[in-house]
Amino acid sequence: MSQNMDIFNNMESEVRSYVRSFPTIFTKAKGYKMWDESGKEYIDFFAGAGALNYGHNDSVMQKKLVEYITSDGITHSLDMASTAKAEFLNRFNEVILKPRDLNYKVMFPGPTGTNTVESALKLARKVTGRTDIISFTNGFHGMTIGSLSVTGNSMKRKGAGIPLQNVVTMPYDNYVDDQDSLDYLERFLEDSGSGVAIPAAMILETVQGEGGINAASFEWLKKLEGICKRWGILLIVDDVQAGVGRTGTFFSFEPAGIKPDIVCLSKSLSGYGLPFAVTLVRPEIDKFQPGEHNGTFRGNNHAFVTATSALSYWENDDFEKDVKVKSEKIYTFLEKMVKKYPELKGEVRGRGFMVGIASEVEGLSNKIAANAFELGLIMETSGPKDEVFKLFPPLTIDEEGLNKGFAIIEESIKAQVKEPVTN
Amino acid sequence: MSQNMDIFNNMESEVRSYVRSFPTIFTKAKGYKMWDESGKEYIDFFAGAGALNYGHNDSVMQKKLVEYITSDGITHSLDMASTAKAEFLNRFNEVILKPRDLNYKVMFPGPTGTNTVESALKLARKVTGRTDIISFTNGFHGMTIGSLSVTGNSMKRKGAGIPLQNVVTMPYDNYVDDQDSLDYLERFLEDSGSGVAIPAAMILETVQGEGGINAASFEWLKKLEGICKRWGILLIVDDVQAGVGRTGTFFSFEPAGIKPDIVCLSKSLSGYGLPFAVTLVRPEIDKFQPGEHNGTFRGNNHAFVTATSALSYWENDDFEKDVKVKSEKIYTFLEKMVKKYPELKGEVRGRGFMVGIASEVEGLSNKIAANAFELGLIMETSGPKDEVFKLFPPLTIDEEGLNKGFAIIEESIKAQVKEPVTN
Amino acid sequence: MSQNMDIFNNMESEVRSYVRSFPTIFTKAKGYKMWDESGKEYIDFFAGAGALNYGHNDSVMQKKLVEYITSDGITHSLDMASTAKAEFLNRFNEVILKPRDLNYKVMFPGPTGTNTVESALKLARKVTGRTDIISFTNGFHGMTIGSLSVTGNSMKRKGAGIPLQNVVTMPYDNYVDDQDSLDYLERFLEDSGSGVAIPAAMILETVQGEGGINAASFEWLKKLEGICKRWGILLIVDDVQAGVGRTGTFFSFEPAGIKPDIVCLSKSLSGYGLPFAVTLVRPEIDKFQPGEHNGTFRGNNHAFVTATSALSYWENDDFEKDVKVKSEKIYTFLEKMVKKYPELKGEVRGRGFMVGIASEVEGLSNKIAANAFELGLIMETSGPKDEVFKLFPPLTIDEEGLNKGFAIIEESIKAQVKEPVTN
Amino acid sequence: MSQNMDIFNNMESEVRSYVRSFPTIFTKAKGYKMWDESGKEYIDFFAGAGALNYGHNDSVMQKKLVEYITSDGITHSLDMASTAKAEFLNRFNEVILKPRDLNYKVMFPGPTGTNTVESALKLARKVTGRTDIISFTNGFHGMTIGSLSVTGNSMKRKGAGIPLQNVVTMPYDNYVDDQDSLDYLERFLEDSGSGVAIPAAMILETVQGEGGINAASFEWLKKLEGICKRWGILLIVDDVQAGVGRTGTFFSFEPAGIKPDIVCLSKSLSGYGLPFAVTLVRPEIDKFQPGEHNGTFRGNNHAFVTATSALSYWENDDFEKDVKVKSEKIYTFLEKMVKKYPELKGEVRGRGFMVGIASEVEGLSNKIAANAFELGLIMETSGPKDEVFKLFPPLTIDEEGLNKGFAIIEESIKAQVKEPVTN
Repeated sequence: MSQNMDIFNNMESEVRSYVRSFPTIFTKAKGYKMWDESGKEYIDFFAGAGALNYGHNDSVMQKKLVEYITSDGITHSLDMASTAKAEFLNRFNEVILKPRDLNYKVMFPGPTGTNTVESALKLARKVTGRTDIISFTNGFHGMTIGSLSVTGNSMKRKGAGIPLQNVVTMPYDNYVDDQDSLDYLERFLEDSGSGVAIPAAMILETVQGEGGINAASFEWLKKLEGICKRWGILLIVDDVQAGVGRTGTFFSFEPAGIKPDIVCLSKSLSGYGLPFAVTLVRPEIDKFQPGEHNGTFRGNNHAFVTATSALSYWENDDFEKDVKVKSEKIYTFLEKMVKKYPELKGEVRGRGFMVGIASEVEGLSNKIAANAFELGLIMETSGPKDEVFKLFPPLTIDEEGLNKGFAIIEESIKAQVKEPVTN
Repeated sequence: MSQNMDIFNNMESEVRSYVRSFPTIFTKAKGYKMWDESGKEYIDFFAGAGALNYGHNDSVMQKKLVEYITSDGITHSLDMASTAKAEFLNRFNEVILKPRDLNYKVMFPGPTGTNTVESALKLARKVTGRTDIISFTNGFHGMTIGSLSVTGNSMKRKGAGIPLQNVVTMPYDNYVDDQDSLDYLERFLEDSGSGVAIPAAMILETVQGEGGINAASFEWLKKLEGICKRWGILLIVDDVQAGVGRTGTFFSFEPAGIKPDIVCLSKSLSGYGLPFAVTLVRPEIDKFQPGEHNGTFRGNNHAFVTATSALSYWENDDFEKDVKVKSEKIYTFLEKMVKKYPELKGEVRGRGFMVGIASEVEGLSNKIAANAFELGLIMETSGPKDEVFKLFPPLTIDEEGLNKGFAIIEESIKAQVKEPVTN
Repeated sequence: MSQNMDIFNNMESEVRSYVRSFPTIFTKAKGYKMWDESGKEYIDFFAGAGALNYGHNDSVMQKKLVEYITSDGITHSLDMASTAKAEFLNRFNEVILKPRDLNYKVMFPGPTGTNTVESALKLARKVTGRTDIISFTNGFHGMTIGSLSVTGNSMKRKGAGIPLQNVVTMPYDNYVDDQDSLDYLERFLEDSGSGVAIPAAMILETVQGEGGINAASFEWLKKLEGICKRWGILLIVDDVQAGVGRTGTFFSFEPAGIKPDIVCLSKSLSGYGLPFAVTLVRPEIDKFQPGEHNGTFRGNNHAFVTATSALSYWENDDFEKDVKVKSEKIYTFLEKMVKKYPELKGEVRGRGFMVGIASEVEGLSNKIAANAFELGLIMETSGPKDEVFKLFPPLTIDEEGLNKGFAIIEESIKAQVKEPVTN
Repeated sequence: MSQNMDIFNNMESEVRSYVRSFPTIFTKAKGYKMWDESGKEYIDFFAGAGALNYGHNDSVMQKKLVEYITSDGITHSLDMASTAKAEFLNRFNEVILKPRDLNYKVMFPGPTGTNTVESALKLARKVTGRTDIISFTNGFHGMTIGSLSVTGNSMKRKGAGIPLQNVVTMPYDNYVDDQDSLDYLERFLEDSGSGVAIPAAMILETVQGEGGINAASFEWLKKLEGICKRWGILLIVDDVQAGVGRTGTFFSFEPAGIKPDIVCLSKSLSGYGLPFAVTLVRPEIDKFQPGEHNGTFRGNNHAFVTATSALSYWENDDFEKDVKVKSEKIYTFLEKMVKKYPELKGEVRGRGFMVGIASEVEGLSNKIAANAFELGLIMETSGPKDEVFKLFPPLTIDEEGLNKGFAIIEESIKAQVKEPVTN
């Protein structure tokens, strides 16, 4: 470990985490590559946990951002109007909303994922007059009390120091073998003796990132939307991690053919890794009073600038198609690994660029990720027992980058399972 | 109103607020000045509600930031180590903590004020094993459920849609005439039949920004610290708005001679208006598990770069002295206004660059602020009934800027009170 | 309706309920019979909702009670020691606990069902240091906030006027067709990402009275006990309605072969319909401080006297055997009704003297019960939609009484289904 | 201690309390006297903590009760109509409500104090749609979660095992020296930034029994009623301990000239020490659905019979006058004790037959009460530190009984303060 890491060990709180898994000081990054202080190069299959879908320091956005800064463009504007904000709104409407026949109002709830989730939960409760939210097993929605209440992870929940309330957790798709989780859910709703009240909203990720790369089937999502409509329950899709192209389409829910009442976006929305979030809201439920939810950094103009630029990727379907081709390549690779290394006791999970292998062997995924880091690949694990190693490369990665990454992963698997089967 | 405002009216959520008070599109800013699309110049006595203490687009920070961006420095790093983060930590320790004999651990809780408050409340509950927090009347701490629970404003509390719990509100300094609020508070603590349990922590602002520019006396703060020590209660100072020089010293609590257990900083911490926050924690209570509180944007490297640069203002006491001189000038001006315009039924409140006039005449402060905006001055109101107009210029403003601002304010007062006394 | 009912209509709160179903003024009762002011006789298949398992005004208890009263025996003693209380404790130990190899401590929590449930929940939370309780769909445990939180009925829950917290509802036995509810439950416990924390306790009725006469299988109960042991969760059996012989054994859980950590008893415990309740607690968890739970009427000595006398029924197994014979007769009758009247779309539910028919025809069970009342039989409905008519005769009823009751029920069914099948 | 106490030590839960202060087995009682198994006679200045205002086993009620029982009168009737209930309602209306110009509806919420309090809180929240209740320091309202939430005692609150919510505690009359507690309260209500929402109701005792015999002044009560009216807040008087004559009038609030929206009665309501409670409700807010609050023992007919009989005491004002004369005698005695024994550092508290001496000497009141028990007087202590010894004789006590009691108390004081001043 670098001598220079001392400053982190001495000064930074014990709560620090990724710096423990990736113990080096990064200094530069471009596209899918990062470099540390010693000059060592890393392939980034982590992408800021989904915040860097376009890779590091995209040159087009970089140029726009520098121009904006040097021209003394507004940096901070709370929720006052600025040129950069107007351009973002116009462009987001033209490139994203209109073509998808979505007429959401855009709320700027503060620049992080948990801000958008909190604003969504508050709004849902306010407009329905109900207090409960249905969340799902292994959902992850953020660390502030409202978002943490709908987050499944028990270690993180305990961090609250108070009982987390006004939430009912229901089983996600495929939670209990051979049991249809939505049958359970609807049984609770229709039975007036179930102890479960009709909630204000349901909140879910279509693919659970932190919860273990569980991808809900499109049928399940469609059925869930039907239940929400039948019972007058708002449907909130938390697309913070799965959105902005990570699963292959701009919104993760597009292929399921559903239209949520509220959508939470953040992470890759700025395109450049800058803090930014929006809450998209059906006009009929856009019922907050002026200022009823606010925050200092809901007008991060640097992010408006790069986000506007990033929307160019979505002007036609070239990018989407390219992502599709590469994601199939990734999936094929993972399936090959599972087959070739039965010691993994592995299962491929996820869709698009949001995939990984869940290994039943305790601790193995962590060892593989640690091994990969040694070999120059940055890769995270997730799931309640860190049982999944996640492949989250930038969507803009090229074939060469993918292949390099694959090679390191296979080498790491091989090293950790010790005796790979021959074939 | 500009034609171009249509995009905001059509696309942005009803929750938007400042854009209603300042209905124009800003396009450029430097120091204490802003310009809108029509080229009109504004003097900024708002300063991003305290997020722009060094003014807009400070040239030194601007240069550093552009250099960093163009050199492909790490932009987003979650909580991995980066060169920019190491430099910030080193410099913050050297320039701020050490000279003040503070040995806090630094937690990066996510880049906004509400993130740092939530992390502080969670930590206090976790380490004490208690659930209640004592907050104070007219405190403002943020909009996510944990922070909102300790915020006094009833309109904002209703936005939660659920009862806000685990909080006891106590009277701030001077809340009821001729009654000592801390006698009252301690009576509740010492009486085992009071219904108020010993709390995990007390959280307060030394000067309440949103709550009406109420400044606690140093005696009151000192006495409060004593109560906390006596009962084993953690003291959290939310210095999000009052900190980073706003009241004249880096931390607002310095002149009171107290040392909080936890300090929340954000707003002007980046120096440049970029989203950034830290939670400072006494090492003895730095007890989160790794990752027990996390967040995507807790490693905003652009903010590390500008924040590091901004610390230069604090290397010696020149800046502090200069701020002191100017703040006295502001205070003198406000006292003159109150005296000269008795129709204001005004009271000067606050300290440092965090001051304003509370008018007993309903609606008058809002009218004065609106009038000032017409005349080219941006100024906010605060307090439960918006009864205070706030003077929040950048600390870096020059004499000319102050005088221009004063002139507009007086003109606005005069216009609104109609018949100023002659003198 | 009797003129004299006016006093109830004029003076009593709208919340009154049974007086609406049985609109007459009762004046006298003995065994399984009641008489109203007009002298009309009724057969009582309601038995105070399980509070009169030995029938009305049992002559032996009546004599003991009158002797006690006329001798100026202590009536009210809070929780001071009294002769009557000592005798109850001795006798309860000898006749009930010892022969069943149970060494519970006896807590007097106040004289009603909801008092014993509240004391059980508080104790479970206190000794485990956990806050959540797992309750089950269609459970009914009382109307005070603690008990109401673990009660399923949505109408009653809304009566709280506040969100009910610290509770997770799980599916009772057979809740969803073809899905094992305990597989589901244990999945939530074992998954650290489920959002469901290990609870302090689970609380359940072995047969749900108000919830629709749902009887859990002995296998299910046994498996549930195993889960509780495996996870260190306390098992609370609320035997308020199903206990004291209602299902055929003193405790309803005896035939399942389980030993709960806490047992709640009330209703028929006094034997005479007097307010009385006890909470039975494993000695290892008997951890309340003196007076930490208290109440004015936890020493109802009249109830001690009759309860002690009532225990004579349990000195040998004659009573239990007799109840068994009669309960089979009841069950056979109900099965015959279901078969003979397919228009009922009926299902026989329950066990022992805690049985009924659930009819899928909306409103039919209520009509049958109303019809029966006209014909001189008192019978209640239960279930989330009042879909079950319940047969709750006193356990002491004789053959003649049962047959009379059966005849009225069949006549009522016939009248309501209009065209009975011939056979 | 009697050998026979073993059964309590072995079988009864650790939570037992009064049996520890009064360690003997009582066997008989009449009027103001009790006898234990050894035949020792005690004077009862405890009166079931206010549940035996008419003394033990009043001969008139006793006769009526025995007649009722031997005639097979209905014992248990849930909330069906019975002759005994009709008579109670009629008589309560004629003797109590009408003459006081009160037109309350009568709710039977279950037979204990905590049942009536829970029903009152639920109703207040339901009809106002608000969730918070304002309670007062050192209030005592019961041990079930709803009632416990509004109870001040910290030891009892901890027994809940969960944070108690939806409550704000305000200072009772004279809580902080030289500070007007209602100025505080109203300041919180009128300030929209106070963090305290307009509550559904305020609940209070006019004299706090368990909290230390604190008597609110009539002016304070009147002012409080005015605040409630001004803000549309329901006023609940918990008259469980102070009602039914204990302070000299049937309702404790009569002399203050206020009319609460809801009144909670229990303890002495049955007149005979039997479990019984009613909730009195202004007709305009009698809004529960049928059965929305229920309970097995809300129809305790034995209590109806004795309660009806007990109302004879209130047919004219003879009883009230007699109580007044005796209560002055008690008060004079207590003032004499305080003066004569300055070592007591005593203060006389309370009014009517609800009085005591608060001693500043830690532990002294308990010692005096223990000493008195040895000498044959039963007397309780109360207050957060048990600093008050309470004189709660039956209202029906005669001069001889009072004098005997006074003599024992003085002897106990003398013995405990060691060196009484001569005078």
